[in-house]
Amino acid sequence: MAYMGATHTRADLAAADVGDALAGVRERFILPEGVIYLDGNSLGALPRATAARVQDLVVRQWGRDLIRSWNSHDWIGAPARIGGKIAPLIGAGADEVIVADSTSVNLFKLVTGALSLRPGRRVILTEPGNFPTDLYILQGVSDLLGERVELRVRSREALPDAIDDDTAAVVLTHVHYKTAERWPMAAITARAHAHGALAVWDLSHSAGALALDLNRDGADIALGCGYKYLNGGPGAPSFVFVARRWQDRMAPPLSGWMGHADPFGFGDDYRPASGIRRQLCGTPAMLGLAALEAGVDEFGGLDMAQVEAKGLALGDAFIALVEARCADAGWQLASPRASAARGSHVSFRHPDGYPIMQALIARGVIGDFRAPDILRFGFTPLYLRFVDIWDAVETLRAVIDTGEYRDPRFSARATVT
Amino acid sequence: MAYMGATHTRADLAAADVGDALAGVRERFILPEGVIYLDGNSLGALPRATAARVQDLVVRQWGRDLIRSWNSHDWIGAPARIGGKIAPLIGAGADEVIVADSTSVNLFKLVTGALSLRPGRRVILTEPGNFPTDLYILQGVSDLLGERVELRVRSREALPDAIDDDTAAVVLTHVHYKTAERWPMAAITARAHAHGALAVWDLSHSAGALALDLNRDGADIALGCGYKYLNGGPGAPSFVFVARRWQDRMAPPLSGWMGHADPFGFGDDYRPASGIRRQLCGTPAMLGLAALEAGVDEFGGLDMAQVEAKGLALGDAFIALVEARCADAGWQLASPRASAARGSHVSFRHPDGYPIMQALIARGVIGDFRAPDILRFGFTPLYLRFVDIWDAVETLRAVIDTGEYRDPRFSARATVT
Repeated sequence: MAYMGATHTRADLAAADVGDALAGVRERFILPEGVIYLDGNSLGALPRATAARVQDLVVRQWGRDLIRSWNSHDWIGAPARIGGKIAPLIGAGADEVIVADSTSVNLFKLVTGALSLRPGRRVILTEPGNFPTDLYILQGVSDLLGERVELRVRSREALPDAIDDDTAAVVLTHVHYKTAERWPMAAITARAHAHGALAVWDLSHSAGALALDLNRDGADIALGCGYKYLNGGPGAPSFVFVARRWQDRMAPPLSGWMGHADPFGFGDDYRPASGIRRQLCGTPAMLGLAALEAGVDEFGGLDMAQVEAKGLALGDAFIALVEARCADAGWQLASPRASAARGSHVSFRHPDGYPIMQALIARGVIGDFRAPDILRFGFTPLYLRFVDIWDAVETLRAVIDTGEYRDPRFSARATVT
Repeated sequence: MAYMGATHTRADLAAADVGDALAGVRERFILPEGVIYLDGNSLGALPRATAARVQDLVVRQWGRDLIRSWNSHDWIGAPARIGGKIAPLIGAGADEVIVADSTSVNLFKLVTGALSLRPGRRVILTEPGNFPTDLYILQGVSDLLGERVELRVRSREALPDAIDDDTAAVVLTHVHYKTAERWPMAAITARAHAHGALAVWDLSHSAGALALDLNRDGADIALGCGYKYLNGGPGAPSFVFVARRWQDRMAPPLSGWMGHADPFGFGDDYRPASGIRRQLCGTPAMLGLAALEAGVDEFGGLDMAQVEAKGLALGDAFIALVEARCADAGWQLASPRASAARGSHVSFRHPDGYPIMQALIARGVIGDFRAPDILRFGFTPLYLRFVDIWDAVETLRAVIDTGEYRDPRFSARATVT
């Protein structure tokens, strides 16, 4: 599906849209006028159905039915129900996924849980430049557990060979948040298993964009973000995957009442639920869950292989057009050129990356910047068109050609970049 | 403010409403027709402003402004901003409170954090029958940290004398979820301090109902629930209090990126933020935060001493009327009779507690049941009237007198009781 080359025109891209089996899915989302949104990998756009779903939760369920809604609207079942809807997007069984807490909190649960499955082993292996909260949480686990944990951080090149018989768990983000580099999940997992270690995959930058198949690839444990490609809204709850074979053997360090075998027995002693429900901790965050469910429901009927192929084709087109049309020596592709090695976003380095991105955003092309010099562009297959890629690159070209990014207002740093 | 005695009439209660300085606050809430809601201690009612606030967050902020809202609508500042609004309700400084995660997750953070402040001490002291998730989380901390922690569970009578020089932290729920018994916060905290221990208070059943003054009472660490008396909606985020003197010395075991000194620097090494922001972990759950902020805003301009006095007076009236008018030998008051020793709910034991509560709910009087035999009635000072107490007791009387609670349909157990 290499839609693009240097000699293509906007008409060629429009033709690609006509041939796009997913083109109609865009109608399921609300996208503001005058904006080309290339940041759905950071915060997914608003599905058309979400506002009414959230409003129903607030007004009818909470407001009218009050406490009874835990039963009558099955609030209590929401974490498992939504988990079951995420499962087919990631190649998991419906009873292997549940929604709870934030990605950061879930990583803490899962890594301490993984350690409990590998008694006698103390090494957690990850890579430098992993998404910061992943590294921070691993450091926190290590600080808390002291001598029982050794955190080893090895470069992407050295990491596979660093998996050894001391390794308890390999903890990696499947698609790198900056570069979009994709780890070969099956190969790394197999290598971990060969040494008796577990593989823990952070799917934050892949779930909802790639055709994941956790069970085919042998994954033990995974988690991911609800507010990126799953379109669950800002700060949406995160999802957790634990392969069936581990669920009842894993210690739940955050042993809150919702993970109890009988949460409404109100007994004094913790007795973990069997199955994936053990991964729950506190009371389900219903507003966030309602929005996440609406987001996940938008994937109904979609073929994830088609979703992945479109996202990668959008990325291919973007790379080809930037390199062909934005005549500036400063560009350096920071993502793999081969789409099979990439996730659904593309990054370029540029020494003026920060002001260029601000100038682009001012013109309504929204990507983001990641220090020190990365411009990151996300290609959400559900609501982007091929012509959006053309128009985004033309805007980028204008920002460069006019030199407008040199305006001092584009150099001022905001809190969140 | 003893409004009620056995000889009072509904007219007397109506007169109490006329004299109630808080009567007008009821207008700030949406309460369904035909319902007397005595479960605001479990899930607060819907404030009139909430639906529009949440809708604005979803449609205008998320939908239209997308990722830019982290800056332009100060999403990033929401946890501290809302914490600052909760602070005056609990007698804390605005920079001592922040909103994040669930109560269960926060207790884990705070107890492991408290241990980090008391090196060399391993005893965590609590009481049996504490709210289950509190006990479960403490058990989880103990299981995870092994020999570094000893969990001692001592009865309410024995607990004060059990505080000794080995105690790292005393962890108690200020108002008991079943009985509404109130711990003397200042006295227990002083006793903990006399032995060099810290006091950690779960305010889930007191914040928003009682006139708390954490700093006057010397509290070190506290947390509470957003969806009970604060009316933040089902599964609302929880709040955390850490006294200024401890904030920068406390290790954050859940060291997620939002608690980093420079979260958008995307560095590889965790460096905790100074101040209360260190208690943050993952990305703020914006839908839940928007609803919680609306709930907390309803306290604007209210005098918490007046709020507390009204809630206790409602409880006094309820006790007096049940004992005078519900002629059934089965009732046994499970809460302190003296209002100063109570929170804002009242519990009675009755051998037929479960079906009686179900029959009451069927008639629109919503309280809840806590095993094995407790009927729990919450008296939310912001939206309950004194006549509601009369009407609720008359309904209870009818349920008993008719014997309708013996209908088999009221004995069937639901998931959430």
